[in-house]
This record gives sequence, C-alpha cells and structure tokens, in this order.
Amino acid sequence: MWIETKTEVEKASRTRASFSRRVLNGLLLCSGDMEHLDKYMKDKSFVLQLVVCGLRAVARVILANNPLSGGLILAALYWASPWQGLLGTLGVLASTLTAVITGQDSAEVAGGLHGFNGMLVSLLMGEFSSAGDWYWWLLLPVFLGSATCVFLFSGLSSFLDRWDLPAAVFPFNIIIILYLLCTGPEHPYFPHHSVKPPGALEPNATELIALQVIRGIPLGVGQIFACGDLGPSLLILGAVFLYSPLLAVHALLGSAVGTLTGLSMAVRHESLYSGLSGFNGALGCMTVGGLFFTFSLWTHLFAIASAFFSAYADIALSNLMGTVGLPASSWAATLVATLMLLLTGSLAAYRIPIGQVRAPERNLRSRSQWEAGNTEERESTDV
Amino acid sequence: MWIETKTEVEKASRTRASFSRRVLNGLLLCSGDMEHLDKYMKDKSFVLQLVVCGLRAVARVILANNPLSGGLILAALYWASPWQGLLGTLGVLASTLTAVITGQDSAEVAGGLHGFNGMLVSLLMGEFSSAGDWYWWLLLPVFLGSATCVFLFSGLSSFLDRWDLPAAVFPFNIIIILYLLCTGPEHPYFPHHSVKPPGALEPNATELIALQVIRGIPLGVGQIFACGDLGPSLLILGAVFLYSPLLAVHALLGSAVGTLTGLSMAVRHESLYSGLSGFNGALGCMTVGGLFFTFSLWTHLFAIASAFFSAYADIALSNLMGTVGLPASSWAATLVATLMLLLTGSLAAYRIPIGQVRAPERNLRSRSQWEAGNTEERESTDV
Amino acid sequence: MWIETKTEVEKASRTRASFSRRVLNGLLLCSGDMEHLDKYMKDKSFVLQLVVCGLRAVARVILANNPLSGGLILAALYWASPWQGLLGTLGVLASTLTAVITGQDSAEVAGGLHGFNGMLVSLLMGEFSSAGDWYWWLLLPVFLGSATCVFLFSGLSSFLDRWDLPAAVFPFNIIIILYLLCTGPEHPYFPHHSVKPPGALEPNATELIALQVIRGIPLGVGQIFACGDLGPSLLILGAVFLYSPLLAVHALLGSAVGTLTGLSMAVRHESLYSGLSGFNGALGCMTVGGLFFTFSLWTHLFAIASAFFSAYADIALSNLMGTVGLPASSWAATLVATLMLLLTGSLAAYRIPIGQVRAPERNLRSRSQWEAGNTEERESTDV
Repeated sequence: MWIETKTEVEKASRTRASFSRRVLNGLLLCSGDMEHLDKYMKDKSFVLQLVVCGLRAVARVILANNPLSGGLILAALYWASPWQGLLGTLGVLASTLTAVITGQDSAEVAGGLHGFNGMLVSLLMGEFSSAGDWYWWLLLPVFLGSATCVFLFSGLSSFLDRWDLPAAVFPFNIIIILYLLCTGPEHPYFPHHSVKPPGALEPNATELIALQVIRGIPLGVGQIFACGDLGPSLLILGAVFLYSPLLAVHALLGSAVGTLTGLSMAVRHESLYSGLSGFNGALGCMTVGGLFFTFSLWTHLFAIASAFFSAYADIALSNLMGTVGLPASSWAATLVATLMLLLTGSLAAYRIPIGQVRAPERNLRSRSQWEAGNTEERESTDV
Repeated sequence: MWIETKTEVEKASRTRASFSRRVLNGLLLCSGDMEHLDKYMKDKSFVLQLVVCGLRAVARVILANNPLSGGLILAALYWASPWQGLLGTLGVLASTLTAVITGQDSAEVAGGLHGFNGMLVSLLMGEFSSAGDWYWWLLLPVFLGSATCVFLFSGLSSFLDRWDLPAAVFPFNIIIILYLLCTGPEHPYFPHHSVKPPGALEPNATELIALQVIRGIPLGVGQIFACGDLGPSLLILGAVFLYSPLLAVHALLGSAVGTLTGLSMAVRHESLYSGLSGFNGALGCMTVGGLFFTFSLWTHLFAIASAFFSAYADIALSNLMGTVGLPASSWAATLVATLMLLLTGSLAAYRIPIGQVRAPERNLRSRSQWEAGNTEERESTDV
Repeated sequence: MWIETKTEVEKASRTRASFSRRVLNGLLLCSGDMEHLDKYMKDKSFVLQLVVCGLRAVARVILANNPLSGGLILAALYWASPWQGLLGTLGVLASTLTAVITGQDSAEVAGGLHGFNGMLVSLLMGEFSSAGDWYWWLLLPVFLGSATCVFLFSGLSSFLDRWDLPAAVFPFNIIIILYLLCTGPEHPYFPHHSVKPPGALEPNATELIALQVIRGIPLGVGQIFACGDLGPSLLILGAVFLYSPLLAVHALLGSAVGTLTGLSMAVRHESLYSGLSGFNGALGCMTVGGLFFTFSLWTHLFAIASAFFSAYADIALSNLMGTVGLPASSWAATLVATLMLLLTGSLAAYRIPIGQVRAPERNLRSRSQWEAGNTEERESTDV
C-alpha cells in the first residue's frame, strides 16, 4: 500500500513537473518569431493565412513578429476603444490585400511586412478625427490611405535596399502627414484636431505631478498604437514581453528616457502625462537594443543613446511641424533608427543583416552561426 | 472609251487612295519619336540642330519627344500670350546652350533633355511675376534660373542613376521654389503673386458650376505649361496626340481624375475651374500609363492609381507650401512618378529601362525585343 | 685684412640668404596638409595627438587641413570672445573623444574629420544663446550636440559613400536646427535669439554705406566661424592663406560674390554689413575652386558659378527657415557643393576623389599622378 501511495505521489509530482514543463514549452513555442507556425500554415485556407499574417502585422508595429502578440495587442486596442480596434483591423486587411493584389513578394506579405503601416495610418486617422467615433465616412480615407502604404513601402524598400535599410514606418509617417495636410481642422468631410507642439507655452501651468509622469512611462508604449489608457498599454507591453522579454525591457527603458528628455526640455505637462514624450524614445531604444543589433553591453549603451536622440529629435520635429498644425508622429525614431543602422565603428560590428533579423534572444543565440554568413554577404554587396 | 473611263476612274481612285496613304504615311512619320530626323540632322548647321533640340525640349515638358509637337505647343503658348511664349523660348535656349557650354552629353542635349526644365522655370517665373508683361528685367532671373537647371539636372541624374531613375522635373521644381523664396510678394525688383492654398476656406462660396468644372479638365493639360486658356490647351492636347494618342488619352484621363480628387476634398472652386487641380493628376497618369511602362490593362489601372495619388499629394503639398506662400508646382506628380518607377511587384514587370523609353505605341510593339535586354540589364545592376 | 672682411661680408650675406631660405623652407613645411607631422606624431602621447587632431579639426571648418592654421583660428576666436573660444574648444574635444570611444576609423579621427562639426555646433549654440556669456548650463547641450555630430557624420558618410560624396557640414546643420527647434526664444533653460530672415522689409531703411559693405567681405570669411569682428576675421583669412593661398583667394572672392548677390536681391543692410550674406558664397567658392577639383580656368569659372548659386540659395533658404525663426546656417553652400561634386560634363574631369583631396597647390602638382588612379577607381565603382 505504502509503496503504491509513494508511486502515486511520485506520479502526481511527475505529472505536475511535466505539466509545468509543458506549459513552459508551450510558452517558448508561443514566444519569439514562431517560425514553426509558417510550416503548419502552408496548406491552410487563404482566410486563415490572412488572419495569421494580419496578426503578425499588428505585432510588427511595435517591432515584434508574433501572431499571438498581435492578437493580444488587437484585444488591447478593442478594449481601449472598439472603434479604434475596428479601424486598425480594417487598415491591416486593406493594406495586406492591396499587397497581395499588386503582386508583392509573398514571403514579405506572409511576414506581415505590408500590413503594419496600413494599421498605423488607420489608427492615427481615427485618433486625429474630430468627427467622433463611428463616423463611417472615415472608412474611405482609412481604406485608401492603408492601400497607398503598400506602394510607398515597396518603392522605399527598393530605394533603401542599397544600404540594406528597412522601409520601417516611413510610409505611415508620409501618408498620415499627407492626409492631415489634405484635410485640415475645418474640413467639411474629414475634420481633425489641430496639434499643439510640445514646446508651446502654458499660461497657467500647474505643478508637475510625479505620479502622473511615472504613469506616462508605460503609456509611452501604448502611444505607439495611439492608445492612451493604462490597462491596454500594459497589455501591449505584455504582448511584447511574450515575443521577447529583452524587447519589452528596452521599450520601457526607452519610454523612461523619453520622459526624462521631455522633463529636461520643459515640454507641456500634457505631453508627459499622456506618454507622447516617451513613445519615440521607446521605438528608438527597441530598434537598437536587440532587434537590429546583437544584444551586448555596448549595444545596450547605444540603445540608450538612440533613445535620447530620438526623444530630443521628436521634440524638435514636433515643434517644427506644430507650426503648421501637424504631428511629428514617429519621424524622429524612424530617422534615428535609420541613422543607427548606417553607423560605422564599433556598433556596426553587432549589426544583423535585415533579412536575418529575428527575436533578440534568438539573434543572441545564433550570432556565431550567421556571423560567417554576414561577412560573406557584406563582401558580395561591396562588389 | 468605257474601258478608258474605267481605268481613269480607277486611276483617280488609286491616286486618291495613294494620296490618303501618303498622308497617313506622312502623319506616321511625323508622330512618335521621329528618330529618322536625327540621322537627317547630323550634318546640318548648329542653328538648325539647336532649333530641333529646342522643340524636342518643349515637347519633353509634357513627356512627348517630337519636334513637331514642340512646335505646336510653342505656337499654343505664343497664342495664349506672346510674352509667355518669348520667355519659354528664352528658357529653352538658355538652358540648352548652358548644357552645350558645360560639356553635357551631346546625345542628351540633342534629345532635348537639358531644355525642358529651363522652359518650365521661365514660364512659371513669368506666370508668378506681378510686374506685368514685357517687364524686361525679368529676363535676368529667367536666364540665370534656366541655366542653373542644367547643373541640377546633371547632378540629380548622377544621384538617381543608381536606381535607373530620371531627374525628370525635379530641377524645375527646386529652382522655382528657390526663386520665389529669394524674391517675395513685395520685392523691389521681382515682385510676385502670393499663392493661395487650394484648401483655403472661401467665406462666401457660390455654388459649383458643372460646366466650368468639365472645362477645367482640358485646362489641366494646358496648366502643365502654366497656360489657362481653352484654345491653346486643346492645341497642346493635339500636339500630344500627334506624338502618341495613348499619351493624350492618359493626359485627359489624369486631369479628370485630378478634378474628381479636388471635388472629393472640397478645394476652392477657382482651383477646379482653372485646371490647377488636374495637371498633377495628368502628369502622374501619363508617366505610368504608357511612357515608363509598357501599356496593358494592369499598367492602365496603376496609371489611374498614380493619378489619384498625385492629385491627393498635390492638394496636401499645396496646403503645406501655401502656408509660406509657395506653390506646389509639380512636386506631387514628380515624386509619385519616381515612387512608381521604384515599385516592385507586378508593375515592375512592365517597367521600361530609362534609356529605352520611346513613344508608348512603339514601346508596345518592341516589348518582346527589349525584354531580353531588360533582364540582362537587371542582372548586371544587381551584381 | 680686406680679404677677410670680404669673406666676412660674403659669409654674412650667405648666412642671411640661407636664413631667409630656411624661413621659406620652414613656411613651406608649415603650409599645406603637413603630412610629415603625422609620421612624427605616431609615437607621441595621446594628449599631444589629440591636440594636433583637434587643431586640424578647427581648420577643417574652413576646409583647411593644417594644425597651425587651426591654432591661428582658435587664437582668433579667443581674441574675438574668450567664451566662444572656450565653447569651440569644448566642442572639438567632445566630438573627437566621442569618435574615439565609438570606435570610428582612427585615420579619420587623426585627420580631424570628426571634430569640425562638433566645433561648429558649439560655436553656433553660443552665438544664438540669449542667456549671455559664461552661462555654464550651456555646456550641457554643447557637449551633447557635439557628441551627436559623430553619429550623424558616420551615418551620413555611409550613405553618401555610394557617390563618393563627403558628409561635409551636414551633421552640424542638422544638429543646430534640431537644437534651436527643441529650445526656442523663450525656453526656460536655453533661450536663444530669434532669427530675422534677410528678405524681411525694413520700415525705415537708411542709405547703404559702401565702406560698410566692403568691410562685410572679409567678415564673410569670419562668419564661417560665427565671428563678426574684423581683426579676428582677417587672422582667420591669414590662417587659410598659410594652408593654401589659392583657397584664401577663393574665400575672399566667394564672399564678394555673396555680398554682390545680397545687393542684387536687396537683402537687409544688416545682413550685408555683418558678412552673413557672404559666408555661404565663400564656402561654395572654396569647395569648387581648388579643394575638390584641380585648379584651372574652367574650375575657377565653376567656382564663381557655385558661389553665386550658394549665395542665392542661402537667401532663399534663409527666407524659408526664417518664417519659423530658424537660421539657414550653411545649408545652401553644403547642398550646392554636394551638387557640384555630382556634376557630369566638363567639371567632372577635374574632380579629385574624396580620399585624395589635399591642399589645392599639391592637388595641382600631383594631378598627373592620381589621374591614372582616378580612372581605375571610377571603373571599379561602376561595376
């Protein structure tokens, strides 16, 4: 009897251990780039493939490449505002389908590369619209703007390919500026809020509330999706953590650096509280600290420098574009990240060729493997 | 007798047939790129060569490459305003001669590539000047501005050559902006009209007149030469038709798309009536629909997309540049056309290498011939 | 006795001759690029190497590459204003040290290529600051701005390398604009003067004083270092003369052209008197007339054209950027110089590859030597 009980206990503990191991394995399977999913998806229906590549595109906005992260983020957006969630979904679908129709590279489409700009455009169009939620006419520019992103992404990729640079969110930044310029605050069909530059003077400024500023740091991560609520922002951060803990840490760190920068330049309090000061820093920090460069102490320091530079450039550009009522969106971070990718010197040694970029943790592991390939590739482009 | 009469009738009908055949042959000889003329011109005097290459340059403004079209267009300009015609002539001559003196490639000069930017600069300088016609001091900036276009054309060509992109009308767009910035509405020597952005609100707007809007469509073709009269605009359209009927159709189509775009964005009525809403659409449509891409249904659809994108971008840029009193001239169409040339995917398969671009009809015929060459060229640039 | 006296006289005269020959030899050793110094410096301490490369960087601002010229210029700056001199020194050191730490190419660092942008940034930050001299907080942005120049220089060099173009002073121009945009005239920590565009109307303009205008020509050379005093400006000109008399002549010539341009466009008198109208012309003229092109009559004419173009473009850009209170600094000259380097035609035949640029006099002498190398290099880049 005793022996049996012992074995039962052993069995139970073993079951528990194997259960937690299974959970861990499951989590590991769900984290990172989930490349195993691609093989599984190959013979599935078009709609299912579209869903997966759409979710990948949603995650791509925040530099992750994982359909589950995408799902979590989409849930966060619907939680924050169902209308914004709907616009985002439409944007991803419109641009992904445009990419399919115009015959873009199918591997790129499957990787979600043609969807994330469209999503950002539609989210920001919704955010800036002053016609209120559920203004159905907005779907027209959302659809057109998202579709046009594919053209810009394809053209800019051809252009930047000479330096092995990604088109990143340049298409989104261009289209949203063109849209806002086309319409204007008092447009009869598509009115939008005017943007106040962060450096604008506040006549009766109250004292700064430290807690609100700290609250702005996670909000900075949410602001990448134009989302200003704490709960959804934390869920988005969690989605990034699922893809790569390292990336999530850099997102928070970058947002903190951005907030610090805002404080040092005495921007409007509203800008600090809402997380708008932080999101360019977050993007600048994430790009360098793990994604396009193998993680190391050196890369980490450059990531912080990149966050500072992105945040200061964002204040500058916001002040400039604010004079004509435009937002600087993520111009600063995109330009700084592009600059960082062009850098020579010690940082360049850690650079990962665009085609081989995976989750930071995986990049770290397989560095020795691709290093040889990298040297070869470098030589071949230098010919 | 009867037999003789019959043969006479036959002869007469044959004569008539051969006459109409000859007319047709003559017309065919006069249409397209008229490359046979180049052989004929080789041993002619410098002045005659200058005239032909100047007329080619005039036609190049509207993407045609035919000296007879150039002559018709010049006649249209003199018809609309002798002063504008004179300025245009001077601009072409100044920039072509500068190209000869600074030692630019002689084939390029003979093809009129170094003249069309100078012509546009001088036409627009005249158009914006508020000093009235026959203000002779204006010849000074006209001469200098046209000459400077050669520098910009040569430099930008070197730059864009890496992607097999043309310098197009970038030089004109840059120089006219610099000139207008240098002077200003109240300049003591060279005053000019201030530009009103198309999105500016009209306090007491009247109802839109449909006929006027339709009249704006052919005017949009004339506005490429800053010409706002119906007669000359139709003559210009005819000149394009002589070069290539396909191009003329796309010009009208693009202008119509531009006008539609203007309506959808509720621009000022003046902008629709004068054809200013249409000309960027026309240029965007012509570039894709036949000139740089072999004509096909696919290309045709992309041409319409390009027209829409050009027209929307033009409204956006006009609103932006209007805040500092500048016109957007043809920035939108030029940028969109450049983007289209960079596009990957299904459109890229129809792309014609810049050096092999001929009249759309000829491109269509000789597609199979250059296709092999294209593939080879692609491979060589990919090395 | 007499014989002895004679020999003594002979000796004395010979001594004098050899003395003046030695002085001349010494001067010749001190002029030009002083490459012999590099060999001598190889085994010296880091501090001494830093001093020499810092002085080279100071001279690089005005396109010279000679530590003695750098020393003279630094003396001129301390003479004009000790505070500005201190800022300049700090800027050079900050950016040079950043370049060393971030692992930039050591030959580039030793040549002073990573210091001159930092120096310009710090000088201009001091010049625009409205907080007065000895405002120690300014050292913070001076340090950060100068350090960031290294990132921009490295990134832009990678980008422009495809066309064998130098990054020149693009980093300075970008950073100073970003800094001024970040802060603003009424910033609580870093307030700065607002910039008045040169085309702004003067309500009660007095008559132009010819002597003052002529005085503005040498001041235009000093304005390259944001220095508006006659004495120090002449010393700077002397420093350029020590490096290369040809370069000094072109500096004066360019400044005169710039002043003429300002007169022809009726800019504000203040702009002419202070030399601000001249310095872009000077830079544009120096770049073409000797530095990047072998000197010849043809190059000389292009240098004058480049000076005119730079000066006109500067007025245009100043008027544009003045609408948002920004200075055009040396954008015009930098862009025009870049354009000139891209030019095809007769000027391209005189172009010296960036890596082989030396003092104009030396370029002239060794033209035949590198010409062969140039052709080879061209071919290899064309592959």
